[in-house]
Amino acid sequence: MLFLNNYGIVISIVLGVIGLLYAVVLIKKIMASSPGNELMRKVAGAIQEGAKAYLSRQVRTVSVIAVIITILLYVWKQSLAVPVGFVIGAVCSMIAGYIGMRVAVVANVRTTQAATIGALPALRVAFNGGAVTGLLVVGLALVSVAVFYLVMSAGGHVGAAIDALVGLALGASLISVFARLGGGIYTKAADVGADLVGKNEIGLDEDDPRNPATIADNVGDNVGDCAGMAADVFETYAVTLIGALLIAHLSLPTFAGALVYPFLIGGISIVGAVLGILWVNLRNGGATALLMQGVGISAVVTAVLAWPVTQALFSNVEGLPFTPTALYGTAIIGLVLTWAVVLITNYYTATEYGPVRKIAKASETGHATNIIAGIAIGNYATALPVILICASIAGGYMLAGLYGIAIAVMSMLSMAGIIVSLDAFGPITDNAGGIAVMSELPKEVREVTDGLDAVGNTMKAVTKGYAIASAGVAALVLFGSYYLELDKHLHATGVLAATATVDFSLKDPYVIIGLFLGGLIPFLFAAMSMNAVGNTAGAVVQEVRRQISLKPGILKGTDTPEYATCVDIVTKAALREMILPALLPVAIVLIVGLIPFLGYKALGGVLMGTIVTGLFLGLSMTSAGGAWDNAKKYIEEGNHGGKGSEAHKAAVTGDTVGDPYKDTSGPAINPMIKVVNIVAILIIPLLF
Amino acid sequence: MLFLNNYGIVISIVLGVIGLLYAVVLIKKIMASSPGNELMRKVAGAIQEGAKAYLSRQVRTVSVIAVIITILLYVWKQSLAVPVGFVIGAVCSMIAGYIGMRVAVVANVRTTQAATIGALPALRVAFNGGAVTGLLVVGLALVSVAVFYLVMSAGGHVGAAIDALVGLALGASLISVFARLGGGIYTKAADVGADLVGKNEIGLDEDDPRNPATIADNVGDNVGDCAGMAADVFETYAVTLIGALLIAHLSLPTFAGALVYPFLIGGISIVGAVLGILWVNLRNGGATALLMQGVGISAVVTAVLAWPVTQALFSNVEGLPFTPTALYGTAIIGLVLTWAVVLITNYYTATEYGPVRKIAKASETGHATNIIAGIAIGNYATALPVILICASIAGGYMLAGLYGIAIAVMSMLSMAGIIVSLDAFGPITDNAGGIAVMSELPKEVREVTDGLDAVGNTMKAVTKGYAIASAGVAALVLFGSYYLELDKHLHATGVLAATATVDFSLKDPYVIIGLFLGGLIPFLFAAMSMNAVGNTAGAVVQEVRRQISLKPGILKGTDTPEYATCVDIVTKAALREMILPALLPVAIVLIVGLIPFLGYKALGGVLMGTIVTGLFLGLSMTSAGGAWDNAKKYIEEGNHGGKGSEAHKAAVTGDTVGDPYKDTSGPAINPMIKVVNIVAILIIPLLF
Repeated sequence: MLFLNNYGIVISIVLGVIGLLYAVVLIKKIMASSPGNELMRKVAGAIQEGAKAYLSRQVRTVSVIAVIITILLYVWKQSLAVPVGFVIGAVCSMIAGYIGMRVAVVANVRTTQAATIGALPALRVAFNGGAVTGLLVVGLALVSVAVFYLVMSAGGHVGAAIDALVGLALGASLISVFARLGGGIYTKAADVGADLVGKNEIGLDEDDPRNPATIADNVGDNVGDCAGMAADVFETYAVTLIGALLIAHLSLPTFAGALVYPFLIGGISIVGAVLGILWVNLRNGGATALLMQGVGISAVVTAVLAWPVTQALFSNVEGLPFTPTALYGTAIIGLVLTWAVVLITNYYTATEYGPVRKIAKASETGHATNIIAGIAIGNYATALPVILICASIAGGYMLAGLYGIAIAVMSMLSMAGIIVSLDAFGPITDNAGGIAVMSELPKEVREVTDGLDAVGNTMKAVTKGYAIASAGVAALVLFGSYYLELDKHLHATGVLAATATVDFSLKDPYVIIGLFLGGLIPFLFAAMSMNAVGNTAGAVVQEVRRQISLKPGILKGTDTPEYATCVDIVTKAALREMILPALLPVAIVLIVGLIPFLGYKALGGVLMGTIVTGLFLGLSMTSAGGAWDNAKKYIEEGNHGGKGSEAHKAAVTGDTVGDPYKDTSGPAINPMIKVVNIVAILIIPLLF
Repeated sequence: MLFLNNYGIVISIVLGVIGLLYAVVLIKKIMASSPGNELMRKVAGAIQEGAKAYLSRQVRTVSVIAVIITILLYVWKQSLAVPVGFVIGAVCSMIAGYIGMRVAVVANVRTTQAATIGALPALRVAFNGGAVTGLLVVGLALVSVAVFYLVMSAGGHVGAAIDALVGLALGASLISVFARLGGGIYTKAADVGADLVGKNEIGLDEDDPRNPATIADNVGDNVGDCAGMAADVFETYAVTLIGALLIAHLSLPTFAGALVYPFLIGGISIVGAVLGILWVNLRNGGATALLMQGVGISAVVTAVLAWPVTQALFSNVEGLPFTPTALYGTAIIGLVLTWAVVLITNYYTATEYGPVRKIAKASETGHATNIIAGIAIGNYATALPVILICASIAGGYMLAGLYGIAIAVMSMLSMAGIIVSLDAFGPITDNAGGIAVMSELPKEVREVTDGLDAVGNTMKAVTKGYAIASAGVAALVLFGSYYLELDKHLHATGVLAATATVDFSLKDPYVIIGLFLGGLIPFLFAAMSMNAVGNTAGAVVQEVRRQISLKPGILKGTDTPEYATCVDIVTKAALREMILPALLPVAIVLIVGLIPFLGYKALGGVLMGTIVTGLFLGLSMTSAGGAWDNAKKYIEEGNHGGKGSEAHKAAVTGDTVGDPYKDTSGPAINPMIKVVNIVAILIIPLLF
């Protein structure tokens, strides 16, 4: 249909703006609710301040790097398109994380206050806080890519516009690696450090205000789980959309609808997300059920709206290599894959099922058996998602070729609005509990927030499975973009004869070398980021010990700890430690590309090797971490001896090992594997 | 030179027989030394009995499976060649493990007795015990492959002979997966079980005779580290040799010398191994220095002898796609790679260097930080070996193409004689210490055996790095064989046009699906085998608890534990638990091959995916395990609070987690990745 072909992108911009406006409505609604008594506001204020201080410094640090890259891009390209794209991607990624986090740190104390009234009001405040981030992520990503594309392609230069979009993708990716790493190191160093010294050495409970690291711990929830996650999914969404456009442009150049379709999938799913969020706000019921209904509604609305859109765009189009119904099938594959990954991760990380209970049981025989069981569960948890991803690739490809795979991935990412809402809900409820304890509110309030926190933990685990699975398939789309772009470039420059095509054969030893070197990146990256957490946590432990030996009154409650120094230590350390691992993937891509006998074939191997081991490491680390966390919770519910038993001590060890697994290294692999691919796409004309 | 072309294989058989005869000499020498007093003989007798009982049952269990496969192979092929090859491979693999282990369990007590005289006599008995296994492995592998090849190719049917050799490779691989898994589960379940209940619950020392699981623990050292390792390296050696022959036959069909050369590399390195073993027996010096000199001499002798052999075979051969000197260069690459991997693994696992000390330091802050540090070190330890493997692939390929890679790998494997001697030395000294404690010998004897045990631990760790790195490159040779064989088959059957070649492009979504599914195998396999250790260790714990509550006199030393029931439990459990993971790789290859739209391209992806993730998992698990082990030893030497401190407890946790890492899952990945490749080669005519 000509109308949709011409106005489809504008329509999706309008839908994206509606999503953003609804986020503003939600922010107003949250701000209108009560922030509680003075003590609560004071505690919340400290968290807000710490979070703001960290994120401002992170923005400054990253900005320096971003400015350097922008200049380099300009010097190299001698044109503004790519550097401007880079800046837009970087800035939007930062904004999504920044605003989302600012809302989270005002929603937390309001959730605590709402918990004095009841569970449902508290759920709504926390969920709406998360929904702001969810809507920001999809709204900003869709609108920024669409507007930038429209502006750049205004003169009809679709190819140049898409090149500039690769700059946008790089900006988004690089920022989100920093956000994930910096936030991940921050949150887990504070958490592990606070636990090691607070719980193990001094015997304080979680969130005890006498622990000098407790504010840093609560700040961490926001900068890691909220700002980091937002930047990460923003990036995956933007990059998937751009990858789909690249594939549409290069493999279906004569079909205008193919470029418009990914935007519309994004647009209609925002309608789905808004309706899902409304549902949670208007209906009554248990927390988990309500949230899952919200996700279900989003998915169903998207699936229903996609049918007329697909038919309208592609019916009666001559020469199309697939039918509209087949293409609709690929969109459904993405939605089904989302649901399946959510259910599978839930199975491996929720207390109700076998895996978590196996870890809990293994804790009875000690720390070591808890760890062995957890690592094994993490490995097992890779199987079903990977098999389903393979099935989705095969299905998408059979139905509509490489474009079909891209659409399946885009439709999976289109669910990000509602899924991120669930995820960002977690740190808010976590904080709400901390504020309740630190403000010495009655036990009943803490019980309400504890209940929501448990739900939040499962949601966080589940959405991490979604994040890494979607990152894996998004990277495949980028790999497809890499070789299409490379093929075009090598033909244009005459490196390849007209009849030849770019090939990366496993028969070629240099492709195999590439696979090995690429496979190495996630392993090294995970090691570096785990070490960063370990080092920083050690610094926190020493600071807490110093304060307590200096002012023994802290433990008696007669003296106030200096929360700010802990916040400061973690802030500085996180920013310092994130640099090296973030630059590793960029460095390896450049080195392999520059070694003459390796070249573009080995680089193809590097991209694929990173995707393969990255997907497995990401899935196993996030699942194992979630399972360890809930095994501890399951024991604390009174099983296997309950809190304080030997089994519980072993479970605490597992939970602590799981912390950097699930919140630092595992999730940071998501943007990392995409950085590798985007850098490769970008440097094609430079290197080959 | 025509003479070497004609008689080279016979010469290498003669050299192989010399190696086997020298092993017999060493056995006689060991048997001639004193087995100590009555109590020592009684303890050693219990270990011998347990080991014999386990291995006999393992042979019976595996034989049932082997007979079924032999029949299937005969029914399918309607000819004896492949099934007979399968039987030869299976039987020789079992013999290498069986005799090696029988020698180890008589050498252990004689090492203890020699330790009453001094460190050097004890070192020699233990080393000679290990050297028997080393010589058996290379001698049997070389002689069996060479004789079978000569017999089968007697009528000039080189192609048919090589097909039959694939049967031999399958037999060797399948048996060694079972041996590695069964032995690995046995040794670690007994070890972990004995430690969990003995050290942690009751507070007994290692090898305390009051622990009912202590004999099972000592048996485990022999069936795992000795018999399992022997079968594993036998298999890697045989498979590499066969892979090199396949590549020579398919890529250099007109050059007879190309088929003879791998045999001669094997033959001359046996000369090197014998001289290296003699050196250790005739010279004086410290244990580590002597052993390393032995390895050095082996390598130098092999390098020196390879020069005239290479020149004689390939000088003045017309049309050869490489020079003799270039080919010699590939052989040197293999020797250098061996040394480099040994040094690197030593760096990551020895107490003198940073990595182990980092883990020891991290133990001060508890169990969790010990685990995080160990996992990170394991990941780091993959980097240098993988980069060197990549360099070796590139070097071998540049010098002499795919055949050059195969020769580099063959030359790496040719060092197996001396390297396995070092490895098998470990369990003998470990047992010698156990026997000293259980026989209540004076403290000085235990000090001598403890010193040797520490050396043995480092040697075990170092040779594991060698085993997995060589398995990885051997698997690459098999992958090369797979596609050459596939190419031949598809052309012969007309599936491919004469001008087309088989290709596995990363552009093909089915190849990517294959990579993912193949990458999954090592993760699942590791999870299954770790769980098997956990389950079986749990059964040991319960049995020990049962015995102690039934006969409280055991702990007072007034009652004797029933060692045999623990041995029996572990024996049965190990045999039961090894079946499923051993069949997993076979099943996945068959399933992928049988799914119509996946086919041979996806199968190529599966093979490569397994090699990539298998290499990383194998390297990281064995390195982390070795580092944890020695971090514990480092603390026990009096650092970070020494034995009994909180840091020591954390280090014990790390060591226990490391047990299945380094002795079960990690090493079992070696034969597994080759099974995947061999099964694929074998079923080509069946499936495509």
